[in-house]
Amino acid sequence: MQRLDAGSADFGAKFAALVADRREASDDVSAVVADIVRQVAARGDEALADYCRRFDAFDPAEGGLRVPSADIENAKAHIDPAVADAMALAAARIRAFHEAQMPADHSETEDSGTVRGWRYTAVERAGIYVPGGRAPLFSSVLMNAIPAKVAGVEHLVMTTPAPGGRIDPHILAAVDLAGIDEVYRVGGAQAVGALAFGTETIPSVDMIAGPGNAYVAEAKRQMFGRVGIDMVAGPSEILIVADEGADPEVLAADLLSQAEHDPTSQSILITDSANLADAVDAALPAAFAAISTEAAARESWDANGAIITVSALMDAAPLIDALAPEHLALAMADPAPLFDAVRHAGSVFLGYQTPEAIGDYLAGPNHVLPTGRRARFSSGLGTASFMKRTTFLNVSAAGMAELGPAAAALAHAEQLPAHALSIERRLARR
Amino acid sequence: MQRLDAGSADFGAKFAALVADRREASDDVSAVVADIVRQVAARGDEALADYCRRFDAFDPAEGGLRVPSADIENAKAHIDPAVADAMALAAARIRAFHEAQMPADHSETEDSGTVRGWRYTAVERAGIYVPGGRAPLFSSVLMNAIPAKVAGVEHLVMTTPAPGGRIDPHILAAVDLAGIDEVYRVGGAQAVGALAFGTETIPSVDMIAGPGNAYVAEAKRQMFGRVGIDMVAGPSEILIVADEGADPEVLAADLLSQAEHDPTSQSILITDSANLADAVDAALPAAFAAISTEAAARESWDANGAIITVSALMDAAPLIDALAPEHLALAMADPAPLFDAVRHAGSVFLGYQTPEAIGDYLAGPNHVLPTGRRARFSSGLGTASFMKRTTFLNVSAAGMAELGPAAAALAHAEQLPAHALSIERRLARR
Repeated sequence: MQRLDAGSADFGAKFAALVADRREASDDVSAVVADIVRQVAARGDEALADYCRRFDAFDPAEGGLRVPSADIENAKAHIDPAVADAMALAAARIRAFHEAQMPADHSETEDSGTVRGWRYTAVERAGIYVPGGRAPLFSSVLMNAIPAKVAGVEHLVMTTPAPGGRIDPHILAAVDLAGIDEVYRVGGAQAVGALAFGTETIPSVDMIAGPGNAYVAEAKRQMFGRVGIDMVAGPSEILIVADEGADPEVLAADLLSQAEHDPTSQSILITDSANLADAVDAALPAAFAAISTEAAARESWDANGAIITVSALMDAAPLIDALAPEHLALAMADPAPLFDAVRHAGSVFLGYQTPEAIGDYLAGPNHVLPTGRRARFSSGLGTASFMKRTTFLNVSAAGMAELGPAAAALAHAEQLPAHALSIERRLARR
Repeated sequence: MQRLDAGSADFGAKFAALVADRREASDDVSAVVADIVRQVAARGDEALADYCRRFDAFDPAEGGLRVPSADIENAKAHIDPAVADAMALAAARIRAFHEAQMPADHSETEDSGTVRGWRYTAVERAGIYVPGGRAPLFSSVLMNAIPAKVAGVEHLVMTTPAPGGRIDPHILAAVDLAGIDEVYRVGGAQAVGALAFGTETIPSVDMIAGPGNAYVAEAKRQMFGRVGIDMVAGPSEILIVADEGADPEVLAADLLSQAEHDPTSQSILITDSANLADAVDAALPAAFAAISTEAAARESWDANGAIITVSALMDAAPLIDALAPEHLALAMADPAPLFDAVRHAGSVFLGYQTPEAIGDYLAGPNHVLPTGRRARFSSGLGTASFMKRTTFLNVSAAGMAELGPAAAALAHAEQLPAHALSIERRLARR
């Protein structure tokens, strides 16, 4: 962890280094990923079986790539009923928020009778990647699948690594809640390749969403163009701005709630109170001691954490925009002025009572958000991520008389005579 | 050109081949592009100067990379006033259509007092690539720049190749109309690299839009993630569905208006009338003879053109969705039922009086559209392409009491104890 003071002479250089630090896999995984994807495109299920045996100690020949629907329907019986209820609450709230995001169609008729507008339709087939690993991240299932279903995606396919063939029942319960149509036991770049190209067992999709490690992210990037992808995602991050009314023990927990994800995660605190900065620092050991994820959290905080003091909270605005954080928490008595002054952030958590963790699970907004300063140009996942806009135009006879000559003049100036001809032949027949 | 009949036994296989044909550069340009981008990132302006001398016979040391603003302001004086007027009409109509596309912010307050919603903000700095080549494609300047300015982009930068240092005055007149802030004389993958990384002269941007050749497209793909990009674009295409009321000479011009772009372009006609199919075929020689772009148009039509006969026009719907064309023209007396039945198309041109060329220039909808079946999952360029959505959440004390316990239960089930702690410490302090 580093402490920076915006008033010190070297702040500019130190802050610039913090902004420039990308924390993303520096290994060049692209060649490995290209080979895996090529294998899957060429050899289909046979290649997937090889990778499952090698990486997941699982042979699809026994058990099958596809998870039986009975396993999905029965999963809920295998989890704590309180967790099942909380999951249902989360699903309902996420669904309602994403229903409000449904984009509107538009049509306008000009005086000439010419009509122009657009309409939105859903992607037909979408694939969702859910990472495996230590813990069952079932909230990612809900956050990726519910917007797709709200958008109207008919065929929603999920892939996830299944070590030993096993998938956690929490994941399958979320699959059931979200209405995912098919689930396949395969992970990594090979799963992304299977979704993009299709295999004998796994159908190809039009678009792929969902988080994953550096191999999955690179595979999505390589498949972009053949299929749509939600985003290129990197390690998670939070930037908290707090005034001296914030509780240091609560802030310590907030910082570690990001740090515990992964050693490459990043938590930064900005405050105008040196006392608060010291108090948060002092509260961290007890917070570390309270969590079983201490090792990852400590590694992340030591390597990537920062506490920055500023002389006035509004001075944080340009720092926030430069970092363009995935998560921005404004733990302040009156967060509105700073929120209004900020432009680049994936999702914002306002006030003392809004931990990012509430948003991660069940507030409604999506937790799939742009990382690594990408909030400068991209949005989190939403309903429109699974839809596309088709514009339309119906030129009336009067509209052709009004617009045709000008359009033909432009076509000639662009040296595209057939464009002009298509207009001039219509004008000649009037 | 091939003729297909949906009633013939081999139609399925032949149509599948048509769908699978991607017409995109098969050369592997990625290594060349990666090297160019690396050179620009490492050597900045010096690398750009090398490429300008090599590819454009132009030395930025004399004349400069940046186009002087006086050249832009004076450009209008060097073009035909009728073309300048038509360009102004186009700009006004494109602007109005894209103003209607401004996405809406949203905020909702729950019974607990918890507030959730989202707001849209513009990308701060955007770059537009405009290809060089035979003809001055100034309409691309308008179609890329106007949505960016409507969105609220403050710094809009354009790059375009300038053979001998010269840029066509039509292009510069469009720059002036669209309000682009800076123009640089550099093209190719090196221009994309310069926009992504910045050089001593060219400022880096947050997002890059605009068409280009295979090198430009690959450079955008490689830079995706570091910056936003509008889309990965390929050769242009049109699919026309016509009933027997359509004029075969007009249709011949419509088909060639796509074919003349480039030998890799594709024009397809689907009709339920064998007579019309024959008449269009018979009308093509006169149309070819009428255009100075005959060579490219003929090459495109011979290699990629198709006329498909179906027994009923509604049978075209699944064929359209399988091809997911960039441009779909429904030259029919009543296009509404087929339009309603279709799902995947970039932009649709309805009725006998709506040539795609009107949409290319000045109807209002954008002409930057998904190609190569990408309309299955992506939209054309629009105002929202230059904006991003930030979600927000403000949990009230009552909201924390209502949602906190369920969120903490989910955090524990995901084995993320610091997430739970950040909630539980707040609940404990109530």
